[in-house]
Amino acid sequence: MSERENADARKTRSAERNLKRMDGQGLTVAVVGATGVVGNEMVRVLAQRRFPVRALRLFATARSAGRRLPFGDREIEIEETSAAALSGHEVVLFAGGDDASRQFAWTVADGGGVAIDNSSTWRLDPRVPLVVPEVNAHALPAHQGVIANPNCTAATMVMALAPLHRAVGIRRVVVATYQSVSGGGADNVRALLEQTRALLDETDALQDGSLDRIERATGTAHPLAFNVLPQWKWGADGYTEEELKIVAETHKILEADFPVLPTTVRVPVLVGHTVAMHLDLGRPLAPEEARRILAASAGVEVVDAPEAGRFPTPLLSAGRDEVLVGRIRRDPSSATGLLLVAAGDNLRKGAALNAVQIAEALVAERLLPRAPARA
Amino acid sequence: MSERENADARKTRSAERNLKRMDGQGLTVAVVGATGVVGNEMVRVLAQRRFPVRALRLFATARSAGRRLPFGDREIEIEETSAAALSGHEVVLFAGGDDASRQFAWTVADGGGVAIDNSSTWRLDPRVPLVVPEVNAHALPAHQGVIANPNCTAATMVMALAPLHRAVGIRRVVVATYQSVSGGGADNVRALLEQTRALLDETDALQDGSLDRIERATGTAHPLAFNVLPQWKWGADGYTEEELKIVAETHKILEADFPVLPTTVRVPVLVGHTVAMHLDLGRPLAPEEARRILAASAGVEVVDAPEAGRFPTPLLSAGRDEVLVGRIRRDPSSATGLLLVAAGDNLRKGAALNAVQIAEALVAERLLPRAPARA
Repeated sequence: MSERENADARKTRSAERNLKRMDGQGLTVAVVGATGVVGNEMVRVLAQRRFPVRALRLFATARSAGRRLPFGDREIEIEETSAAALSGHEVVLFAGGDDASRQFAWTVADGGGVAIDNSSTWRLDPRVPLVVPEVNAHALPAHQGVIANPNCTAATMVMALAPLHRAVGIRRVVVATYQSVSGGGADNVRALLEQTRALLDETDALQDGSLDRIERATGTAHPLAFNVLPQWKWGADGYTEEELKIVAETHKILEADFPVLPTTVRVPVLVGHTVAMHLDLGRPLAPEEARRILAASAGVEVVDAPEAGRFPTPLLSAGRDEVLVGRIRRDPSSATGLLLVAAGDNLRKGAALNAVQIAEALVAERLLPRAPARA
Repeated sequence: MSERENADARKTRSAERNLKRMDGQGLTVAVVGATGVVGNEMVRVLAQRRFPVRALRLFATARSAGRRLPFGDREIEIEETSAAALSGHEVVLFAGGDDASRQFAWTVADGGGVAIDNSSTWRLDPRVPLVVPEVNAHALPAHQGVIANPNCTAATMVMALAPLHRAVGIRRVVVATYQSVSGGGADNVRALLEQTRALLDETDALQDGSLDRIERATGTAHPLAFNVLPQWKWGADGYTEEELKIVAETHKILEADFPVLPTTVRVPVLVGHTVAMHLDLGRPLAPEEARRILAASAGVEVVDAPEAGRFPTPLLSAGRDEVLVGRIRRDPSSATGLLLVAAGDNLRKGAALNAVQIAEALVAERLLPRAPARA
């Protein structure tokens, strides 16, 4: 896979630059929620990108304490999260869910460290920059010790939207999502695999819609396997919480308020979120021009030669750093309309990679290590 | 399942009315392509709805000739399709693909019968009504012996769109699809199941995006299983043929020309097509009013109590006659905007059921049996 090798080579070069910058010393780093799908990926990404780590500690709930996780060629023992244990770290990546972030993010900040938080807890807090480095790294210097990582679908979306918004302005986005189960955590991954195994013995029931047999096999009439589910926590006016997050976070990251009209849907895919978007733009933009703009954007790869079998899919995006954009088409009814599809690895650009990139950007901007605590 | 029982009861009553109308005599009926997923479903639907059949013959390619298929409590032997064998039938349902329809549909018409064609061959031919009976049965009397059944996704869409278009007018539709593999025929169903089994042993590869291992396991880097695929035959300007069909057929059925901006996507689901739509309407329409209009529409069931776990899914739609519509939401940026999701059984309302309903409508309108051939 020469594409994969190229991507790896780029990662290594970027990591070498980081190491040089840190004079080989590195930072004290912690990951909270290290045993979850995102936390686990954060540890892998720190190693893959050779983030300048002087010392790494991994935290989770008491249940996981004592387990060991690989980091490069070492193994690190999981400790139980506590304010005392986190204090003194220069950077703490949070992937432990809302509870851990609510409890400990500002403790890290108050102790002079930087919390980079993957939960939704602080994303819309005006004190907290919500950052995708390729899009709005300029929001970083105003941070007060807590920086938020966006929702995994919002991250994929803004990677495709930001370059077009900068070029011609966006007036409206209609988006339908195809979100993988890992966006819902390890339990959902296990559930999809178990339900898939169970339903492979019930393929007649799937085709007939025999819900009683499907429920007996999986314990639910709404399985993730062989199904398409618009099921999240429900917010106001019939919207899912996921839809409300996508709207608010797209606005905050792009510093814009154009209408974003989302329908979020879970599909039986393990990793990789896909979005199908229709854009109303501020000025006419031909597909070839959109391709040129996106191809020149850091972190975006245009995969758009459908007749040659090149189009974005979640499977192609899995394990990749880039957000893949393709199926870029003219809106025949309007010169300012444009359709496109984007796919990104929800655990990487949608979560762990973006968090580590935020830390890298802080290092590059000499915002890490932070000034000593205000004690 | 009391819902299922209610639906069955309605089917039976409708069938009894049909039988009465035919004075117990019935029609000579043939199904071409009876061994495919749609043809097979046509035979089942004819039996379930007790369509007034005096004699039924089943046709397929030479390869399947001699096999037997159940019809009610009988078995019928498959014969090889030929013009001679089809001649003299009063109604012939075509599910044998473009080749069979191109070759034989007008032969049936010229012989005084009616061809109801599920292929895309004649759908846009001006001599051929393209009909969803609940929407445009008024187009039937002008038929010249060939009537087309719409694309499975277009059929689901227009069931939701037509009542709203009649009520307030539609000015634009943006639609993203979640289409099941059975829409691509029995080979795709088999491929999904085989690939799913193979990839359950490669879940690491799915999560890492190890395409070489995925290709070794399934023979393709674009499997249907655990993936989301915008892959069809490609048409003009980067659109799939499926997208072009959806646009043209929606226009023909609704006798309208508002922009329809589609992205078609195949998902790992066996049966049931889902669509997520954003509508720009001619007049403001509150969600509760849209629900009322849709709930009063024949063939539509509003499934829209998300907090109670009631929303459209393909699995809920499988085996059902009704198109399920839900997730009806206000567009916060525009009083004339509306979002909704619809799901329909692509083999039933999207194909076999609609074809049989066309035949039933012809009987009800005394358009079947047709006047003797113009020989």
